[in-house]
Amino acid sequence: MNVAVDAMGGDYAPELVVQGAVDAVTELGINITLVGHEKRVMEALNGRPADRHISFHHCEEVVRMEESPLKALRKKKDASIRVAFDLVKSGHADAVISAGNSGATLAAAVMTLGRMEGVDRPAIAGILPTERGPIVLIDVGANVDCRPSHLFQFGVMASAFAASCLGIKNPMVGLLSIGEEESKGNEQVRLAHELFTKSDLNFVGNVEGRDILSGRVNIIVCDGFVGNVALKLTEGMVAALGRIIERELMGSFLGRAALMLGRDSIYKFLRRLDYEEYGGAPLLGINGVGMICHGGSSAKAIKNAINIAVQYVNNRVLEKMTLQLKTAKSC
Amino acid sequence: MNVAVDAMGGDYAPELVVQGAVDAVTELGINITLVGHEKRVMEALNGRPADRHISFHHCEEVVRMEESPLKALRKKKDASIRVAFDLVKSGHADAVISAGNSGATLAAAVMTLGRMEGVDRPAIAGILPTERGPIVLIDVGANVDCRPSHLFQFGVMASAFAASCLGIKNPMVGLLSIGEEESKGNEQVRLAHELFTKSDLNFVGNVEGRDILSGRVNIIVCDGFVGNVALKLTEGMVAALGRIIERELMGSFLGRAALMLGRDSIYKFLRRLDYEEYGGAPLLGINGVGMICHGGSSAKAIKNAINIAVQYVNNRVLEKMTLQLKTAKSC
Repeated sequence: MNVAVDAMGGDYAPELVVQGAVDAVTELGINITLVGHEKRVMEALNGRPADRHISFHHCEEVVRMEESPLKALRKKKDASIRVAFDLVKSGHADAVISAGNSGATLAAAVMTLGRMEGVDRPAIAGILPTERGPIVLIDVGANVDCRPSHLFQFGVMASAFAASCLGIKNPMVGLLSIGEEESKGNEQVRLAHELFTKSDLNFVGNVEGRDILSGRVNIIVCDGFVGNVALKLTEGMVAALGRIIERELMGSFLGRAALMLGRDSIYKFLRRLDYEEYGGAPLLGINGVGMICHGGSSAKAIKNAINIAVQYVNNRVLEKMTLQLKTAKSC
Repeated sequence: MNVAVDAMGGDYAPELVVQGAVDAVTELGINITLVGHEKRVMEALNGRPADRHISFHHCEEVVRMEESPLKALRKKKDASIRVAFDLVKSGHADAVISAGNSGATLAAAVMTLGRMEGVDRPAIAGILPTERGPIVLIDVGANVDCRPSHLFQFGVMASAFAASCLGIKNPMVGLLSIGEEESKGNEQVRLAHELFTKSDLNFVGNVEGRDILSGRVNIIVCDGFVGNVALKLTEGMVAALGRIIERELMGSFLGRAALMLGRDSIYKFLRRLDYEEYGGAPLLGINGVGMICHGGSSAKAIKNAINIAVQYVNNRVLEKMTLQLKTAKSC
């Protein structure tokens, strides 16, 4: 197993990305290829002894966060994210991890590896921690407008992923809408509801915004516009809460005492809602394995994303997904 | 000033609704008309002495939460929500408050009072507390599909409302999208961006999900599908957090001590994120004043919603909105 890590992508690249990759080698017993500017990657390794599980692939360019993905990829043939997917295409790597420009990661994946059979639109599956375990929110930003059949394919792919990589048997699938009745929602959602109802997925019907963090279902399907807003709202709320809790508690004597005593527990609960736990969002529907990590990923987030990718490969999720897409179609 | 309160609408109606209305009479010095089944309303008043500021309007029927709004309104001519808006139409009341079926409240408002000139689609404006003061999220559920011109009208109406009722001078308006660049988002959002840019509103451009609770802008415009998901996600998160905090803290000795000392501060911060503070969501774009309250509204939420309605009437928001809609059009 060899994972290609885009060492140049992310707010803290290459330092924390390289750190997370090195930790993954130690903890998961896998090989990694660090893709990026060799001199900078070497500096990030900071004099660590050579490790036969770590290899390098030099490239000169990087797609920056603010660049237009398609334009940048056309111009920069030697960009790290593109080279990383080339390594998968040529059989030198089994998966790609990147905390860089997510649009470019998606575009490079589709350009290089292509779409799976039966998938019209690849999607990004966000994994969110809840009180009752992780839920998969799909799509979180790849497709702003979706046809009902796209939404249905998202549900099929996420079911295979959740069963194989998150250990959720027969995952419950909900369709995000603005009311639980099947008549609620916009036209795409109402038509998608029909497709899900006829399928052999474990479909529980429409769910609402409040269900995203309740953990009542395992998978929530929505278009990439709604999913992206929901994902970023959750992230923003976790950040705001840390600040508010501290300020409220610091405002009174008893509060300060409570903060002193309970700091660990309080921050533990904030961490539980944080994206670090699963590290990244798998790109579902491409002919290969790719994980999109948060731009601000810590070393731990990178390592955890690599862990998900390893399970994705080991559990043959692509094969299972292809099979489920075929079965679902024939229903 | 007389406010018609739908005494029969809401999970805790008529008891808590009547309680909130009575509190509003005392604290705000206004008159209210309790609209509903007189016997049940009287029971909810629980032997309180007669008050010349409180009047009654008996009606037999109520639209229940699970009913289809339009069907129910067609059938039930004497439903409390319909009768309440009739009182505004006939000049016996200045505003309506309801914690009942929100679809029926919206439909009854439009049927009875009609739309304002220059407004194609009335919208529900959610008021969310943030660290830096309230923000208005519009629309939170009236319109699942919106044209760019609808989104623009939402921004104009919310600006007039925020300036007059929330005391925010020249409110900053953001358009909810999935990236800050104007090229991001779906087609409606990109076209609405152009309309906002050309207007004289204080438009700051696209904002993302994380900005909903950051308080970076005062108004966030989106379609009713996205807004409803975001609003319910926020509510769900506040509820989940209360449970998680308590459980995490109860799990350790220091945590239990912290909870004992800091309970007030911790719950104060959760309340700050709660909808009770502003009590209800104004219905913007109808020819009159209507507030939609959360089904689970407490007496305090009802009272606070009445307070917003009173400011809406006193500050002549309808006139200002009409003027702004005309000016905006001629830009």
